[in-house]
Amino acid sequence: MALTGELFIGRARRSTARHFQAIDPARGAALEPPFSAAGAAEVEAACALAHAAFDPYRALAPERRAAFLEAIAQHILEQGDALLERSHAESALPPARLAGERARTVGQLRLFAAELRSGEWLGLRVDPALPERQPLPRPDLRQRRIPCGPVAVFGASNFPLAFSVAGGDSAAALAAGCPIVVKGHPAHPGTSEWVARAIVAAAAATDMPEGVFSLLNGPDTALGTALVADPRIRAVAFTGSRAAGLALMKVAAARPEPIAVFAEMSSVNPVILLPAALARGAASLAQAYVASLTLGAGQFCTNPGIVLALQGEGLRTFMDAAAAALGRVEPAVMLTEGIHRHYEQGIARLSGEGAQLLGQGAGNGAQNCARAALFSVTAAALLARPALAAETFGPASLLVRCADVEELRQVLEGLEGQLTATLQMDAADQPLAQALLPTLERKAGRLIVNSWPTGVEVCHAMVHGGPFPATSDGRSTSVGTLAIERFLRPVCYQGFPEALLPPELRATELPRWPHRLDGERRLAKPA
Amino acid sequence: MALTGELFIGRARRSTARHFQAIDPARGAALEPPFSAAGAAEVEAACALAHAAFDPYRALAPERRAAFLEAIAQHILEQGDALLERSHAESALPPARLAGERARTVGQLRLFAAELRSGEWLGLRVDPALPERQPLPRPDLRQRRIPCGPVAVFGASNFPLAFSVAGGDSAAALAAGCPIVVKGHPAHPGTSEWVARAIVAAAAATDMPEGVFSLLNGPDTALGTALVADPRIRAVAFTGSRAAGLALMKVAAARPEPIAVFAEMSSVNPVILLPAALARGAASLAQAYVASLTLGAGQFCTNPGIVLALQGEGLRTFMDAAAAALGRVEPAVMLTEGIHRHYEQGIARLSGEGAQLLGQGAGNGAQNCARAALFSVTAAALLARPALAAETFGPASLLVRCADVEELRQVLEGLEGQLTATLQMDAADQPLAQALLPTLERKAGRLIVNSWPTGVEVCHAMVHGGPFPATSDGRSTSVGTLAIERFLRPVCYQGFPEALLPPELRATELPRWPHRLDGERRLAKPA
Repeated sequence: MALTGELFIGRARRSTARHFQAIDPARGAALEPPFSAAGAAEVEAACALAHAAFDPYRALAPERRAAFLEAIAQHILEQGDALLERSHAESALPPARLAGERARTVGQLRLFAAELRSGEWLGLRVDPALPERQPLPRPDLRQRRIPCGPVAVFGASNFPLAFSVAGGDSAAALAAGCPIVVKGHPAHPGTSEWVARAIVAAAAATDMPEGVFSLLNGPDTALGTALVADPRIRAVAFTGSRAAGLALMKVAAARPEPIAVFAEMSSVNPVILLPAALARGAASLAQAYVASLTLGAGQFCTNPGIVLALQGEGLRTFMDAAAAALGRVEPAVMLTEGIHRHYEQGIARLSGEGAQLLGQGAGNGAQNCARAALFSVTAAALLARPALAAETFGPASLLVRCADVEELRQVLEGLEGQLTATLQMDAADQPLAQALLPTLERKAGRLIVNSWPTGVEVCHAMVHGGPFPATSDGRSTSVGTLAIERFLRPVCYQGFPEALLPPELRATELPRWPHRLDGERRLAKPA
Repeated sequence: MALTGELFIGRARRSTARHFQAIDPARGAALEPPFSAAGAAEVEAACALAHAAFDPYRALAPERRAAFLEAIAQHILEQGDALLERSHAESALPPARLAGERARTVGQLRLFAAELRSGEWLGLRVDPALPERQPLPRPDLRQRRIPCGPVAVFGASNFPLAFSVAGGDSAAALAAGCPIVVKGHPAHPGTSEWVARAIVAAAAATDMPEGVFSLLNGPDTALGTALVADPRIRAVAFTGSRAAGLALMKVAAARPEPIAVFAEMSSVNPVILLPAALARGAASLAQAYVASLTLGAGQFCTNPGIVLALQGEGLRTFMDAAAAALGRVEPAVMLTEGIHRHYEQGIARLSGEGAQLLGQGAGNGAQNCARAALFSVTAAALLARPALAAETFGPASLLVRCADVEELRQVLEGLEGQLTATLQMDAADQPLAQALLPTLERKAGRLIVNSWPTGVEVCHAMVHGGPFPATSDGRSTSVGTLAIERFLRPVCYQGFPEALLPPELRATELPRWPHRLDGERRLAKPA
């Protein structure tokens, strides 16, 4: 089954006259086949189908959608090595990483299937009628959450499986009951085609309505803009650069009917090395830090881009050990030529702004290879030039030397919103950690103690989100089961006869789902 | 205790050089005293206090904030008739209505206190560590929701108590743990001062941190703009006109750090008279309709501004009866001269666009008095001129005569987002109601059977929200306990030592709160 380079407009495939090709970043060479680029006609067709699919798709019982998600996972697994090989060629990510990423992708599809069956996402609330109440009777009022409508999902370059065509955003939106129109990332169209096949096959096998899924590809930004502007699209899920995210937010806000954009954009993920932790294990902290910084060529949203510590002996040991460890890091091919170019620019910017180079990874001058880099500044310098704290996507990090706790606190207060904030601490650091916590809570979506921010668990308690610009909407997460809530909205049914109520709000079915009765929490009872 | 006309900057009062006065709409006469208008210095001072209050206020145990809300309710009640008399003078709303509104205001403060104690809003989730998991151990992950930060609350003219200084938005934000800076509505500054006194007294009595509440007044829009633009404000709650709401959304989106605006703006609340219901009781439906339309001079967000029905004998009876009932409706003073002027313009617009006047209430030409008006158009005319469906705030409504079900469906599909949609139906209408339901669910936040949209119950299952332009964010509600979620965002705690965790996530306290453990729902256990 060779790749065809076609677009997926619902069940149909479509070719266009305009084409682009994926580039193997390790060789700078174009990969076959050419891929059709979607234009206005394809956006129109995909959105029309998604709109038509919305009512029938959302009307399906949760179990039906759960089976669909599980079938997608199964079909992805059945594609075996062919998917991983293409993905490796397009991203230069190591095969073992891609195998792990596939496992995560399949795992999160299954997790959302389980979440669908739990019924927690329904948010059921029932306030029964009080016909005798004075001065006025209360009508029967019941609430559930319904999906918001078709969602535009943007594939991310750095997770060609876990945050692309059937990634976390797609799983959450499909679970919620929203048809999706995916804008595939142009860096990995072949991977996208493989995964699209799995979704289309799963939709057929589980009898999903036509239009529940479409895949549009294109090499430039006009496609994404057109998709977000389409009136039938009701929400947007995006992971990528700050510039691209801001552009989509602007398009969405300028629509006659503005819609929500869930963009995960920019984060430097501060790590704070507290004094006792540094005193006890500066060298091993440095090892772990460099490993987190350079993992996957530093191309994680949660890469530790800023490290803060109080000046002193411990910090000097850490700096020396980190510089030494960094010197042993081999260069790694980045995802795309553009990302590599931006990385080089970021390094130059840090130098230009006066950050001091502490250490570098090995370099080999090979195509699109990133040389890891560690810079250092004083807190005073960073406070004077906040632009130093901007994200450099890739294996670059900035160590901030603070004269005292007050300066540390000031730097933290000056940071923008973050996906994560990490404390490296010992028992003796507890009071200082406690004092910093309110600031960190205000700044980040996930707070970590004695671990490193890379590595995002897909589970119920995860938050992969945070105040702007980490995301466009800090009330949400793009990883974990809570991500489904982005695509739901509450609807209240007042005075409805039993037969007209949605099934899960009827007296017969309600006890099977978790709900609140007059505000009181009730557990689901097995059927 | 005469009114002073001062602003409330935290606990302090402040006068400025610029003043404005409330106007008694029934007489067009200025009411004493003059009120200080806030400028940039007052916005700065109030926001600085709110920012400083945020960490200490949110750190309070839920019980403490619940006690604060209850104390506000108590202090409002203790003001007795003085509050209601001033409110009547400023709004021309009847004393009985204002007494009812005060009861609702007090009731919703108490409901949010109860919600705080329930702990549902905390959204606790715990995924315990799995140290033996392969290939990688899972760290301990715990989630709770924290407040978003200081909230700017805009008082609404049409609910001087229930959606103003200590109204639903204030109660929800304060419950969530957010300090509030209220921009008082210039139509009722005296009412605002009374209520602000109650809040300040309650804050003192329950030992709340300084800055948890401020009240800024001003006669023009610059104040609101400055408040929304202040970087320390983290969310906005607004009820009012579409133009004003859109303006605030624009300011919020243009900030260096955009924030969420929860604006409840514009809705015509379609009511669909199904054939069997019409055949059986057209005349009594008409009576109830006119009562709902003209309640409170039609100045409800949920006023039935559009009625749709299939042409026929039943509809003719309804039209005649509605026109007759309307003729018996006395004129009523509107809230402000501006609202009355806009109402007159809306009536003129409906006529100008070709709507046919079916009937009118009595008129007396008195100051700011609205004469109720019922217009009629064919569905075809409305489809050709969708602007006919724009909201006219006040006791005006448009009856849409549909040739067949398909035309009815088309009109509904063409409507913008709504707060409510209502079905008047008989058992025999069930199949048609069922067929229309998916469209209505997509359009509105609350669906009503055999009642009227005016009258919004404050409870757990209520949704007073809906797709744009009913609100700026259809995922939320501004009435009912779910409204608290607007001001919360999730935070994940990874690998935290017990002592550093927030109290409600510690092993000792967790069982006292509702939570999900590894995704499984657990009820709160009494302490």
